[in-house]
Amino acid sequence: MSKVRQILNLNAYQAGDDTSDMATRDALLRRQANFGAASVLFYRDPIEMVGAQGATMIARDGTRYLDFYNNVPSVGHTHPKVVAAVQAQIAILNTNTRYLVEIVDQYLDALKAHLPDPLSNIALTCSGSEANDLALRVARAASGGTGVIVTDTAYHGNTDLTTRVSPSALKHRQLDDWVIAIPPPGRQAYGTNISAGFAARISEAITTLQSRGHAPAALLFDSIFSSDGIFADPPGFLHLACDTMRAAGGLVIADEVQPGFARTGTNFWGFERHGILPDIVTMGKPMGNGFPMAAMATQPAHLAAFCKDVGYFNTFGGNPVAAAAGLAVLEVIAEDGLQNNAQKTGALLLNGLAEIAAKSDRVADVRGAGLFIGVDLVDPMTGVADPAFTLRLIDAMRDEAILIGAAGKYGATLKIRPPLCLTSAEAERFVTAFDRSLKRAAEG
Amino acid sequence: MSKVRQILNLNAYQAGDDTSDMATRDALLRRQANFGAASVLFYRDPIEMVGAQGATMIARDGTRYLDFYNNVPSVGHTHPKVVAAVQAQIAILNTNTRYLVEIVDQYLDALKAHLPDPLSNIALTCSGSEANDLALRVARAASGGTGVIVTDTAYHGNTDLTTRVSPSALKHRQLDDWVIAIPPPGRQAYGTNISAGFAARISEAITTLQSRGHAPAALLFDSIFSSDGIFADPPGFLHLACDTMRAAGGLVIADEVQPGFARTGTNFWGFERHGILPDIVTMGKPMGNGFPMAAMATQPAHLAAFCKDVGYFNTFGGNPVAAAAGLAVLEVIAEDGLQNNAQKTGALLLNGLAEIAAKSDRVADVRGAGLFIGVDLVDPMTGVADPAFTLRLIDAMRDEAILIGAAGKYGATLKIRPPLCLTSAEAERFVTAFDRSLKRAAEG
Repeated sequence: MSKVRQILNLNAYQAGDDTSDMATRDALLRRQANFGAASVLFYRDPIEMVGAQGATMIARDGTRYLDFYNNVPSVGHTHPKVVAAVQAQIAILNTNTRYLVEIVDQYLDALKAHLPDPLSNIALTCSGSEANDLALRVARAASGGTGVIVTDTAYHGNTDLTTRVSPSALKHRQLDDWVIAIPPPGRQAYGTNISAGFAARISEAITTLQSRGHAPAALLFDSIFSSDGIFADPPGFLHLACDTMRAAGGLVIADEVQPGFARTGTNFWGFERHGILPDIVTMGKPMGNGFPMAAMATQPAHLAAFCKDVGYFNTFGGNPVAAAAGLAVLEVIAEDGLQNNAQKTGALLLNGLAEIAAKSDRVADVRGAGLFIGVDLVDPMTGVADPAFTLRLIDAMRDEAILIGAAGKYGATLKIRPPLCLTSAEAERFVTAFDRSLKRAAEG
Repeated sequence: MSKVRQILNLNAYQAGDDTSDMATRDALLRRQANFGAASVLFYRDPIEMVGAQGATMIARDGTRYLDFYNNVPSVGHTHPKVVAAVQAQIAILNTNTRYLVEIVDQYLDALKAHLPDPLSNIALTCSGSEANDLALRVARAASGGTGVIVTDTAYHGNTDLTTRVSPSALKHRQLDDWVIAIPPPGRQAYGTNISAGFAARISEAITTLQSRGHAPAALLFDSIFSSDGIFADPPGFLHLACDTMRAAGGLVIADEVQPGFARTGTNFWGFERHGILPDIVTMGKPMGNGFPMAAMATQPAHLAAFCKDVGYFNTFGGNPVAAAAGLAVLEVIAEDGLQNNAQKTGALLLNGLAEIAAKSDRVADVRGAGLFIGVDLVDPMTGVADPAFTLRLIDAMRDEAILIGAAGKYGATLKIRPPLCLTSAEAERFVTAFDRSLKRAAEG
């Protein structure tokens, strides 16, 4: 069995035969036959899921897993309010945005209430990939440039264009000459002055792009740098980076697919942590709590620049059922106080993990914001990132019925990303299990 | 108010102020503020929709429109079986394909039962655009080529890559040098020998691509040539075209987003009408009856060639709720005999329209397959395609409470595409209304 996409999904495997259970083996072979070379599953011995509620996913064998991986069912798996909203709207009307439908504009107004004023135009899409694909083209049309700067292990989507700006998705291929990847804004690359160091690399990259004949079009970043290994601090470090790109005529695109919708606790969007105003914001995964929907928000002038040439229509994008799901998600975040809960429960996790880290030679760093936390795992002898140990830890956590994944350039950063409805008890269960698993994984 | 995307959507307008009703005017201004330059609505005086059932859409003012436009709610708006399937699954589990979930493979097996054997690998996406974007890259990886041949007024999606192979979506921009657009396979371009004429143009295009340094990667067509004006006859005309592309080392991609899922009556897929076996089949719009879902099917070796470099994962693609919707759609098509109904009711429409055409100097041609019919409208003096008359006819049909659009290079082909559940009475209502509207539109 071959392990695939090592960087982005350390514990993702092509379907094979490492499973103990005959029923799972049959399901695996069936999936392999259906998906072929694109069949990639979590764990060497994959899990068949039959249900989910809140932060819990239920497997065929009855195991109730705590979901610390999935950033899609962000207000909680099968949240009754979102479920009811979809159930109601799909029985009434599901059509496209060439007709006026009240709930669609109701949703757009509600979403815009969370966005800074200049970003008043929204394009509704089906996926974050579609949103980023559009954002890059809008940035090119608005700036007149073609060059794009991303981070080393960035992931921005699965379309042709977004794959080209996703170094983590490329197995062999080199980046195009209009893309430059720079180290993410962490201490490893930039020491204590992350803001200045990151901006300096952007400045260098702009010069290189220009020397290749590519005026800069965009600085594109996930504002929590999820696939790069999660970098949230110090707040504000993106300010100088954005100024640098803008001074060169390019736009700033905040990819909020990961940090958006209250996950970082202190803010609704990741970019707000840094006090910046992006030219374009893209969003997706948690937007509909699993209902396929995503969006791009920008200033009217930027969208107009793009529409001169092509226009944008998306058949499923902005359908009333998606609007109902999205509206329910916004309401649940407010009603259930999920942003506050992300901050509170995230702090519980962060503190618990920091205590463990202080006593462990395997944990080099614990960092994050709200319910988005990264834990760097290293070889205790060398202090070097240890992906093999990370894999053992992920497997040990699975034995504790906790689902989790890894990120970062070396695949040695545990990526902690539970639903925002996580309870204190669940956070404590996680910390205890992490402590035990760390020891078990260290034993071999 | 400016009319936009003239070719693809003759009766689509940027939101403005041509509306009579104050409530609609407010809704329009709200939409304009939310969508900006990408705000495009059907009709100068747009319609606000509040509900839909079967082939009927219900407007805010109570008008019950017969929907002859929309190829998404193909088994009927808010079909109870599809609605119930989504309602049930969304309350149980909605996750991604990195876990095994039985209903997903159940759906894949059911879908594959409709596909020719060699196309045994399916990639599940959110939109037809994503499916075509992937298909083009798979074709390039499998063929080693880069060149793509499409038809003059083709539309294959809204991503960067698919827009580049969609001449109908480009307002000003020229095609890239790796794309060649050829006239669609109709009598106007190829006379009576469509098969040989179309293949000859493909052969020429291959030579041109090669001279530009682009080995051919794919012949990409919508097998009913919907946006080109609907060309279905004679069955088999695609055979020689496909052979020609394959002999040059390129792949054949059948874009079934429009004709797929039983619409053409005689067959489940449009390509089957021509007795060809595509290397890649893409599908979308009617697949989930409005639930956002789409797919690409291909041979394992082609997908494997692509996955060597990148791999493919789609967060929302293949979620269990989409699988439930898709499964219900397949079951409804079978249980309600919709393929047969498409053939039967389509014949009713075709005959009724042909009778009117025989007496009208405005109708130059009526053609199609099943419930996909095109009606060419011309100036009676010159015999030349008449988009202005087509617009008047579309507005007159709206006054008859029938929603319909246009297609074709000149925007003068009425595009008849009702849900597959269309009753004989509804077909008769359409024919009668068409006859009256033709006269009214001719009067001015």
